Amino acid sequence: MAMRRIVLLAGGVGGAKLAHGLAQVLAPGQLSVIVNTGDDFWHYGLRVCPDLDTVMYTLSGLVDPVNGWGVAGDTIAMLTALQRYGEEPWFRLGDQDVATHLLRTQALRGGSRLTEVTARLSQALGVSTQILPMTDDEVGTIIDTVEYGELAFQEYFVRYRWQPTVKAIRFAGIETARPTSEVEAAIVEADAIVLGPSNPWLSIAPILAVPGLRALIEAQPVPRLALSPIVAGRALKGPAAKLMAELGWDVSASAVARYYGDLINGFVYDVRDAGADVKTKNAVTFDTIMKTDADRAALASAMLEWIESGVVV
Amino acid sequence: MAMRRIVLLAGGVGGAKLAHGLAQVLAPGQLSVIVNTGDDFWHYGLRVCPDLDTVMYTLSGLVDPVNGWGVAGDTIAMLTALQRYGEEPWFRLGDQDVATHLLRTQALRGGSRLTEVTARLSQALGVSTQILPMTDDEVGTIIDTVEYGELAFQEYFVRYRWQPTVKAIRFAGIETARPTSEVEAAIVEADAIVLGPSNPWLSIAPILAVPGLRALIEAQPVPRLALSPIVAGRALKGPAAKLMAELGWDVSASAVARYYGDLINGFVYDVRDAGADVKTKNAVTFDTIMKTDADRAALASAMLEWIESGVVV
Repeated sequence: MAMRRIVLLAGGVGGAKLAHGLAQVLAPGQLSVIVNTGDDFWHYGLRVCPDLDTVMYTLSGLVDPVNGWGVAGDTIAMLTALQRYGEEPWFRLGDQDVATHLLRTQALRGGSRLTEVTARLSQALGVSTQILPMTDDEVGTIIDTVEYGELAFQEYFVRYRWQPTVKAIRFAGIETARPTSEVEAAIVEADAIVLGPSNPWLSIAPILAVPGLRALIEAQPVPRLALSPIVAGRALKGPAAKLMAELGWDVSASAVARYYGDLINGFVYDVRDAGADVKTKNAVTFDTIMKTDADRAALASAMLEWIESGVVV
Repeated sequence: MAMRRIVLLAGGVGGAKLAHGLAQVLAPGQLSVIVNTGDDFWHYGLRVCPDLDTVMYTLSGLVDPVNGWGVAGDTIAMLTALQRYGEEPWFRLGDQDVATHLLRTQALRGGSRLTEVTARLSQALGVSTQILPMTDDEVGTIIDTVEYGELAFQEYFVRYRWQPTVKAIRFAGIETARPTSEVEAAIVEADAIVLGPSNPWLSIAPILAVPGLRALIEAQPVPRLALSPIVAGRALKGPAAKLMAELGWDVSASAVARYYGDLINGFVYDVRDAGADVKTKNAVTFDTIMKTDADRAALASAMLEWIESGVVV
C-alpha cells in the first residue's frame, strides 16, 4: 500500500523536525501537518503562533538550526528598542519574525481565518506541505502551577522557563473551538495519522481536545501512530519528562503509549529503549533522534516503510 | 517680558529642528509642540505617525542626523523579511522604529488616546517637551493630483516622492475631528505661538483645520509668529516650493506671510531674503537654516529675544 496522504499532529521543534523528514520523502501535497495553537498568544498587539511558525520556518529552511525555532540570523533591534520605553520583553520577537506576526495579525484583523493566512504565508515561503492550525478559534493553554497558580502557556514556558511545578493543564476556549473543514478533510482522507514526538500533554493534547477531533481520528481505519518524545527516561527537548513526573506518570516511552491509549494502534519509540515494556499492540523501535536533515528523512522513511508493510491495522 | 510658555506648531523635520532649538534654550516644561497628524496612516496594521515620531526622536536625540527622521543606526530586517512574503514595502519601517509603532498601536487599540500614548512614549525617552498631536481623531491628508487623482498623503509623499502635480489638498475626517483639551490649554496659556518652518499647506494647514483651532489661535492676544520654510525661492526641504507653484502662489517668503494672513502678527524669514517685499506688519530676518544643534538654539534664542523685545503685539 503506497501512502498517498499522511497527517502529522505536531507541536513545535520535535514535530517540525519530523514534518521536515516526511516532507523530504513524500511528494509535494502528500503531507498535512495539524499544528497546536494552544501556545498562541497576543504580544504587543501581535498574534504570535510559535508552533505554526516553527513548522513553517523549518519546512521553508528559514529556521535557526541551533534553536530549532525562529529565523536563522535574526536580529532583535525591535526588542531592544522596546526596552528604551521601559518595557521588559520576556518573549523573543526577532526582527524578521515580526514580519510574520505583522502580516498574520493584519490578516486576522481583516477577517481572514488563521488557516487562510497560514496557507498564504507558508506558500509564499515555498512550502508545499499543508500547514493547518488545529482550529481557527483562539484557544489558550493554561498551566496551573504550585508556585504561581495559573499561568498562560508562554509565561510558564518562556518567562519562567518551565521551572514551576505543574498541577494541571487546561485549554481555555476549547469548548467553543471548532475544527476547521481543512483539518477534518485531512484526517478523513489520510492513509496514516502520525502523532509527532511533541509533548503529549502540551502540544498534542490541545489538538485532540478540539471538540470532535479525537473521536474523528480514532474513527479512521488507518494506521494511527504516535512517536515517543521520551528517550531513555528523558525528554528530547523541553519539559515533557519533568511534566510527566509532576503529573504522576512514570517517565518512559511506555507511559506515553499508555497515555494515548486506544487513540493509537501503533507506537514508535527509540532504539535506546528497546528493552522497555511497551504494552501497545504494534510497537517498533527506530533511531528517533533527529540531529541532521538526513536523520529526519531516515526516520520518516523507516516509519513509512513500517506502516506500508501492513503491520499496523 | 519673560516667555514662560511657548507653543510651536510643527510638521516633521523642519518643525522638529526648531522644537529642538527651543527646547535647548527654554526650561523643561515651557515648550508645547502641537504636531500635524494628517500624515498618520495605517501600515501593516500599525498606526504610523511620522511627524510625531520625528519630533519625538529629534527631541530625545535618537533621530537619524542625516535623514532628519527615523532612528539613527536603525536596520530594516523586518522590512526585508516582508519581501519574502511577496510584499513590496514602499514605506520605510526601521526595526527600532517598529517598537514605537507597536506600543502606540497596542495602546490605541486598548482605548488610549493618541495624546496619552505620545506623552508616555516621549516621557520614557526622557523628553521634557510636551508633544501634542493636533487631535486624537484620525485625520488623513489627501492630495488630489493631476497624474493619479487623489492620493493618501504617504502615497504622494513617499511612494511617489512628491513628484505628482498637486491640484488640491483636503483633510479627510477633519470635520469631525476635535481639538484635545491639552492642545486648547496649551494655546490659551501660551505667551507666544510659533508656526514652525514646516510646509504651510501640508503640515501647518491640517493643524489649523482642526475645528476651532485656527480661531482659538487667532484670538490669543500674544505674539503669533510664523517662520518661512521658503528661503531664496526654494524649500529648505521637501515639496513646499513645488507645491506653492502648483497651487498658484509665487514661491517666496512673502507669499507664505500672505498665506497665513491675519492669523499671524509677526513673521520670521531668512536673512538671504532680506530684500524681499514682505507685507506683514512685524517681520524680521534671521539665519533660519538649522544645520547644527547650535544653529537651532541660535535661531530659537534670536526669535525669543525678538518677541520679548515687545516688537510684536
